[in-house]
Order: sequence, then C-alpha cells, then structure tokens
Amino acid sequence: MLKFVSLLLALSFCQGLQHNNIDDYVAAEPVFEASKYGSLWPLPQKVQISEVSFKLTSSSFRIVDAKASSAGPSCSLLQSAYRRYYEYMFGSAKKQWWSKNNRRSDPSDLSELQVWITSPDSECDGYPSVTSDESYELTVNQPVAVLKAPKVWGALHGLETFSQLVFEDEYGAKSVNAAIINDFPRFQHRGILLDSSRHFLPIKVILANLETMAMNKFNVFHWHIVDDQSFPYLSRTFPQLSEQGAYHPYTHVYTPADVKMVIEFARLRGIRVIPEFDTPGHTQSWGKGQKDLLTPCYSGSKPSGSFGPVNPILNTTYDFMAQFFTEISTVFPDGYVHLGGDEVDFTCWKSNPDIQKFMEQQHFGDDYRKLESFYIQKLLDIVTSTKKGYLIWQEVFDNGVKLKPDTVVHVWIGGGSDKEMSNVTAAGYTTILSAPWYLDYISYGQDWQKYYKVEPLNFEGTDEQKKLVIGGEACLWGEYVDATNLTPRLWPRASAVAERLWSAKDVTDIGDAFNRLSLHRCRMVERGIPAEPLFSSYCPREYKGV
Amino acid sequence: MLKFVSLLLALSFCQGLQHNNIDDYVAAEPVFEASKYGSLWPLPQKVQISEVSFKLTSSSFRIVDAKASSAGPSCSLLQSAYRRYYEYMFGSAKKQWWSKNNRRSDPSDLSELQVWITSPDSECDGYPSVTSDESYELTVNQPVAVLKAPKVWGALHGLETFSQLVFEDEYGAKSVNAAIINDFPRFQHRGILLDSSRHFLPIKVILANLETMAMNKFNVFHWHIVDDQSFPYLSRTFPQLSEQGAYHPYTHVYTPADVKMVIEFARLRGIRVIPEFDTPGHTQSWGKGQKDLLTPCYSGSKPSGSFGPVNPILNTTYDFMAQFFTEISTVFPDGYVHLGGDEVDFTCWKSNPDIQKFMEQQHFGDDYRKLESFYIQKLLDIVTSTKKGYLIWQEVFDNGVKLKPDTVVHVWIGGGSDKEMSNVTAAGYTTILSAPWYLDYISYGQDWQKYYKVEPLNFEGTDEQKKLVIGGEACLWGEYVDATNLTPRLWPRASAVAERLWSAKDVTDIGDAFNRLSLHRCRMVERGIPAEPLFSSYCPREYKGV
Repeated sequence: MLKFVSLLLALSFCQGLQHNNIDDYVAAEPVFEASKYGSLWPLPQKVQISEVSFKLTSSSFRIVDAKASSAGPSCSLLQSAYRRYYEYMFGSAKKQWWSKNNRRSDPSDLSELQVWITSPDSECDGYPSVTSDESYELTVNQPVAVLKAPKVWGALHGLETFSQLVFEDEYGAKSVNAAIINDFPRFQHRGILLDSSRHFLPIKVILANLETMAMNKFNVFHWHIVDDQSFPYLSRTFPQLSEQGAYHPYTHVYTPADVKMVIEFARLRGIRVIPEFDTPGHTQSWGKGQKDLLTPCYSGSKPSGSFGPVNPILNTTYDFMAQFFTEISTVFPDGYVHLGGDEVDFTCWKSNPDIQKFMEQQHFGDDYRKLESFYIQKLLDIVTSTKKGYLIWQEVFDNGVKLKPDTVVHVWIGGGSDKEMSNVTAAGYTTILSAPWYLDYISYGQDWQKYYKVEPLNFEGTDEQKKLVIGGEACLWGEYVDATNLTPRLWPRASAVAERLWSAKDVTDIGDAFNRLSLHRCRMVERGIPAEPLFSSYCPREYKGV
Repeated sequence: MLKFVSLLLALSFCQGLQHNNIDDYVAAEPVFEASKYGSLWPLPQKVQISEVSFKLTSSSFRIVDAKASSAGPSCSLLQSAYRRYYEYMFGSAKKQWWSKNNRRSDPSDLSELQVWITSPDSECDGYPSVTSDESYELTVNQPVAVLKAPKVWGALHGLETFSQLVFEDEYGAKSVNAAIINDFPRFQHRGILLDSSRHFLPIKVILANLETMAMNKFNVFHWHIVDDQSFPYLSRTFPQLSEQGAYHPYTHVYTPADVKMVIEFARLRGIRVIPEFDTPGHTQSWGKGQKDLLTPCYSGSKPSGSFGPVNPILNTTYDFMAQFFTEISTVFPDGYVHLGGDEVDFTCWKSNPDIQKFMEQQHFGDDYRKLESFYIQKLLDIVTSTKKGYLIWQEVFDNGVKLKPDTVVHVWIGGGSDKEMSNVTAAGYTTILSAPWYLDYISYGQDWQKYYKVEPLNFEGTDEQKKLVIGGEACLWGEYVDATNLTPRLWPRASAVAERLWSAKDVTDIGDAFNRLSLHRCRMVERGIPAEPLFSSYCPREYKGV
C-alpha cells in the first residue's frame, strides 16, 4: 500500500556530508520515507486508509451536491470550491479537451464525490466565525465518495482533504485509496498575521496567501493593515489618512473594492478577515492625515516638531475614533476587530505639559500606564458600541484595563509566555498564542521543526483554563518581507503551525511530519505557490517562476 | 542636485519601535536619505556628477557604435546589449508605439550614447577570462554621451552604469545628469556559486540570476553542478551518469543545449562559467551510473553495500576521469575548471581491505591524506593535459598536493580564513575568498552589512602576497534553496559582495551604501528580479509576481 508516495516525490538521502557546512553539520537531519498517511497535511483527527484504490478520470469524475444536501446549485461558495478542487486535481480543463467527447466511466472508477451539507442551515452565504462548525466526514469508496459536513466550512476542509488523497499512479493516472476520515480542528482560531504597513503587499500577494492558508486549513487572516510606517487603508470617512499616510496615495493603498475582494476571497475559503488598527502606539502614519490626533512631543518647554502616541486627553481624539471604528465595523463583517495596544512608548507623553496637567487632574501620579488604560478603556467602549468584539495584545491585559468577558488576549512576548497564558486564563479571558510563532525571525536550517514542537497548552493551569486557549497565529511582520519574498518565507514554515493548531495533541512525530510536509510542500508548488524546500530534495514539477 | 533620488524611492523612517520586536530591537538601523552618488551600485572607482541634467526621449535616444569603434554592427554581443539596456531604461518598445512616427529631438536632449571600443581587438566574439580588461570611461554630456572601453567587457559594465544614471524626473521624463566616470574593478574574479545538485535549478532561474549578476558587475558563475545528492549534468560520453544519478533523467537534467545556452547567455553579459566537478568526495550521485567508480565500504570483512569517495586505487578510475574531463574541457570554454577536493571522509577508505593493502604498498602508513593527495595529483595531471587551469578548495593546498603555479586556491573554511589566506599567498598561489560570504546561512535583519564590511586583504602578508588575491565568491549552497526562493535570498545580499569586490578599498560608508543599495534593489525589482527588501520601505513599482 501507499507506494504512491514514492511516485509523487523522492527526497535525496542525506548521504555524505553537507558540503562546506562542517561547522553547522546537523547529523540528525530526517531522511525521507513514505508516511502511512501519504501527503495529508494537517493530519486529520481520525484516518483510515485502505489498500484498495480507484481511478478517477478527468472526463467523467464529478464533484456534486448530494441529493439530501441543504446546499444546492445556488450555493456559489461550494460551486466555486468544486471548480477549484477539480482544477487542483486534474489541472486546467483545457488539457482534457480531447476527452470531452469521450466521456467514459469504467465501473471500477470512482465517479463522484458527493458533498452533503447535513445541517438545515448550510451557512453558505454567511461568514465564518470563531464558533463555526468546521467538522466533516469523508468516505471514499466505490462507486462514490461522500463528504458529509454540518456546514459549508467543514465541506471546504473536506474538499482539501479529498484532493490531498488523490495521487498519480505509475502511468500518471489519478487514483485514490478507499478511506474513512473523521475530522475537526483542535483549536477554533488558526491564524496568519500579515503586515501591510512596513511593506505594502499587492492584492495579488494577499490572495495567493489566502489560497495557501486554505490548503493548510488556516481560518483567520489577521490583517495588520496599518502601522507607523504607512497607512494603506483607504478610509471613506477619512480619506486623508491614506492620502497622506500611505507610501503612495494611488499605487500603495487598499481601496474599498480591494478590501471587499479580500474579504470575499477569504470567505469563499472559510477564512475570517480580522483587521488590526493598532493604537495608541504604532500610529505615526495616522498623524500625517489627521491633525491633532497624535501627541506633540516637547523638547524642554517647546514642541519638538515630532509626535508620539495618540493624544489621549482630547475629546476630538475620541470623536475621531468613534467615527473611524464605526466605518471599520461596517467594512469588515467579522465579529471581531484587533485593537493592538502594544508597545506604547511614554517618553513623548511625559514631555508634554498638557498631558502632565491631565495626569495631575486625574490623580494618575507618575503612572503612565494609567493614562494608557484611560485611553484604551474609552476606545473599548467605543468599539463595543459598534457591536464588535475585540482582540488586544497582551499589554492591555497586563496593564489591568477592564475587558469584556469575550475579549481575546493575544500573547506575543517571547520568554514568559507560559506564565502569561496562565495569568490570562486564570483571569478568565480567552487567549491566542503567537509568542513562539514569529516567522519573521529566520535562521539557518529546518526551523519549521521548532514551530512544530510547540504545545500551546503546555502551561500551568486547570482544564478550565486550557479551554480558554482558542488557538494561535503565525506572525510574519513586515520589516524584511514584501512581494518579492513573502510567500516562500511563509510557506511551508507556517504549515508547521497549521498542523499544531488543527491536528490532535499527540500528533508529534517529527519524522512522519517531515515526510508528509515534504509532499505537501511539493503540492503547494504544483498549485503555483512558491513554498520553499525543507531540505535537499526535488519536486516532480518544480516552481515555474523565478 | 540629485533630488532625483527622492523621486525614485522614498524609504520609511525608522520612527517608533519595531513592532513586537523588542527583544531584537536594533537602534542603529540606517535611515534612508539620498546619496550624492544616486543609485550607482557597485560604486565606480571615480565619479563626478554635475548638477546639469539632460532629458532622454524613448523615440529619439539611441545607443550606437562610435565611428572609430573596433566593434561594429556585426558585434552581436554589443547589439543585443544595446537593446537590453534600452529596454531597461525605457521599458518595452511597444509602450512607445505612438511616438514612432513622432521622433523628435529637442536640441537640449541627450540624443545618443556612443560606444567606442578602443582596442583593435574588441574581443566581441571571445570569452571573458581572468585577465580580461573590464575598464571603461563614461562621459555624459550634451549632445552625446560617450562610453569608451578597450574591450567589450568594459563596455558592458559601462552600459550598466549609464542605465543606473538615468532617472525619472517629476513628470516621469527620463533624465540623466552630466557626468564623468572612470571605472575598473578592484578584483578580477567576482563570482557567485550556485548549487544545482541539492536542488535542481531550472534554466530559467539560472538565466535570471546571470542577468542579475550583470546588473551587479559580477563576472564569474561558479556552477557547482553536481554533488552527492544528484547529477543533473548530461554527459555525452557517460550519459548513464545523469540517467541514473539525476533526480529525474528527463525533467531534472541539463542537456548539452542547456549548458551551451547558459554559457552563451553568460558570455553576452561578460560572465565566465566555471563548472565544478568535485571529487573524490561529494560523489555519491556519480556512483549510481558508473560502476566501480566509488570505493565499496566494508563492515568487518564484508562489503556493507554502501560506497565512499572515488576509488583511488583502480586504473579504471583514471581512465574514466581522463575521458570525462576531456569532455568537460570541450563543453566549457573557460580556461579554468573547479575540481573541488573538499571534505573527504576517510572512514570508508579505512574500512576497505584493498585500500589498506594499497596504502601499505605505497608506504602511506596510516596517513589517508597521502592517499587523497595521490588521487588528486593524478587528477590534476589529467586536467592539465586537457589544457585547463584549475581551482581547488583549500584542503587540497592544506594537504600538500603539488599544484601548478597558476592554480587558484579557494578559501572557504570560516574561522582562521585570514591565516589561510596568509599561508596560501605565502606559498605563492593565487587565491579567492568565500569564507565570509556563505549566503546560504541566513539570519534575522540586515546581514548584508556583515558581508559588506569584509575586507579581503585584511590578513598578514606582504604587498606581493596581497596581489595574489584575485577576488572572491558569494556562495549559495543548495540545501534550502530552489526555484521558489533562490532569487530573493541571493539578492540584494550578494550585491554587498559585488561592491566589496568591484569598488575601491575605501568605499566603506555603510549609510551611503544603504542609501544606494535601497535604490539599486528597487531597480532590480523594476527589471523583474524579486530582490528582497533591506528594511521597511517601498518601491514605486513593486514586484509583480507572488
């Protein structure tokens, strides 16, 4: 059985030394061999694969709605997914033009994949959320395979899994083994953070990465859309923010149409889009288009000409935020928005005499964290009034700001993150983990293994506390990545995080992971994604770009 | 003057903190401002740029042979270079179709660049070599600019420099400042090593990187074409080597036509192609197609089934090498071939009873370095008989093998490379340096600065010794790179090495380098090369791929 793996890819064995790498020679490099799970990634919760296999012909094989399905031809989310996965499995339809008039079906072939949405509400036209049911059951058997899922979200994952089961036999014929798969994610929140402020990311790059996220069953795109360096979000209410704050007001902005397209492209793949508008720090670019929003810094008794964090003592600040986040609440359909709140530098606030006076009035003493909390508290109230939940970086929690019970605390500071997870969950807040998954930090060798070995629940706490960990995010901050290198730097390193967040806790065999991930990476390459190699190896069809 | 730089690119200032990077926060990140040398890279030896500027129109501007030039219309190397640089400067000619019938020339425009090859032999149809004259003089003035060079090689570099002087003014009009540039390389050997064995590199990737090398005035492509992992070189004499030893005998090989194309593509850009066939170690893939070439390893008294380095005690080995390197000497026109000779593991030789017997007969005692030298000595004699010079990795020198006076010793071992440079040059051998320039080793942040700060002559030795250092190579070993990520990983990090090897010794201002390199990287991006960013910034025209 499973000889198919060796047909899909052979990796070179690590014989001899690594050329000229004596200093860093790692004796324990994994050696490729076929996993009994083939190329499945992330590994489903329950997998049985039989030795029996069936052929699929591109001319006759169809993905169809099951008769009893609550989603029919009008569910364009599924219809477009069928087309997408057909093309992943058989290539573009043009290649098969010669067999169009020659549709034949051998009785031993697998002729159909029936997709059966079992819940009365398929959620086809809705948006995914943190409580979405993503489970599915896949039964591959002759003459038809059946994919059952309560909601479309599970069906999307099941389609990906089915496509991962299909392989080419010795003659290039598409085949699939009989299989029964029962699957659901371990964590509900499985995200990727991309940063479009340090470098502008063309829409094409964002879409390609959403596509790849779906191949890895990620379900949250955390869009760190603006920051100090640039403000590419074109606001209808405050167009001067990007007019002045973007790298370029036309070529380096996301228009409302762009944002809508990203959100819909993501929805069709079961991915939530959570935008981050980080305040009161990280706002230099905001100040360019919005007068009086930032705090004027002082040098002695005079303004220095530079600006600090958002000015928390002016009513105009809160008027602006109210209007701005009202717009955000309508533009982004997700139930949550990320409000940042990290790394606030107090130097500028301290230098400003008006702020000093305000601190006295409020009896804050010298504790500028109280001023920060004052600001954040008002901001949270504003955002709450727009009917959104929020995520915040861990400092907001650390500083004792009063948070709504459904707040998600985002743990990012490396060193002590276990303790932080304990504290946050002990206080009863839900949390997501990013600290060990800062993928912008690169190093020589197979660092995916380091990401893979993380166990998010490996902190001191009760079972109740552990349940408050709803997932995590791989973060790719933008200082050193743009359209030229983002995609190969993210994949397949982020795939390691994908499996950790989806698969069962005991899926920790690094050798088996290497074997499956090697094949999964070649599949991404074959689908047009420049996912970088794990180690010396080849893919049957190498990347066609440069 | 030089306001043009700010039009070509603005980099974001490093205000505020690096988001979420507190641990690794580097306070001394350079801040972008315009260099007085604009975007020139590598910096020419002597540059004078005037404040006077001229416009160039795509409809009327021409690059032409000077009347007195020894290279005329029949010199296709130059003719194709004119087209290439015209396109770099003005974009594809199609864009200007509307102005075809509207060719006008304002008297204040720069109407021509005249290219004048001053030596009677232009070397147009020859190959570049280690002694090629690469110097040129460029005078930009109204109404014509003149590029004088003794040979075509200097003219190619001068064309690149001219194209780097051209910028877009506020209205998008192409302009160039009056300038006088006198230029030549500090070192004759400026190379890039690519490894097509750990991962097969499609021809498209190799050509794109040759193109980029020319933009950086590199002149040697060190093609580490085969190694343990695979043998993609299709040999006419021994086709079974790639038939058995390549990752795939059809899709992952370089045919004679491919190799010819690479060599000609490189020649047209003034780049030498030096192939490396590394023996006696690093030859696992050779053994698959060539019976008895490798040493059978023993486990106790019986062959273990695995193989070690090339078998040095059989006559058939030397017959094979003689035939093989005779072919190589005709396929690759360069005067040099790289013979490797690094990292020979003696374990297998030691295990083999026939080798043990041979060691006794030769009175080598237990010193297997003597056996290695025995092999290498015979190999060098074979290669010498094919009229080629050779490069070898430093171990061959270290082991005391007798070398021809024109041998180039390649220093690669990090730690002690200064001492090695002293020793090699004290022994009278020419040398090239790679030890500090292993670009496969990646790390977070601006590691280009580390490569830039290397001074190759910073070792103890006489002036005579220093003269023996003919250059260096940036090495990108292939364990972790393939078509998906090679190009952005190499550029612009290798550009740092390019300037160190081309420009004057005192060109060491890291801030000025940052400013010029930021612009140079955006120019590479605009020319279709996915060169990665140095730091938070943007390019007016971002990379169009994914």
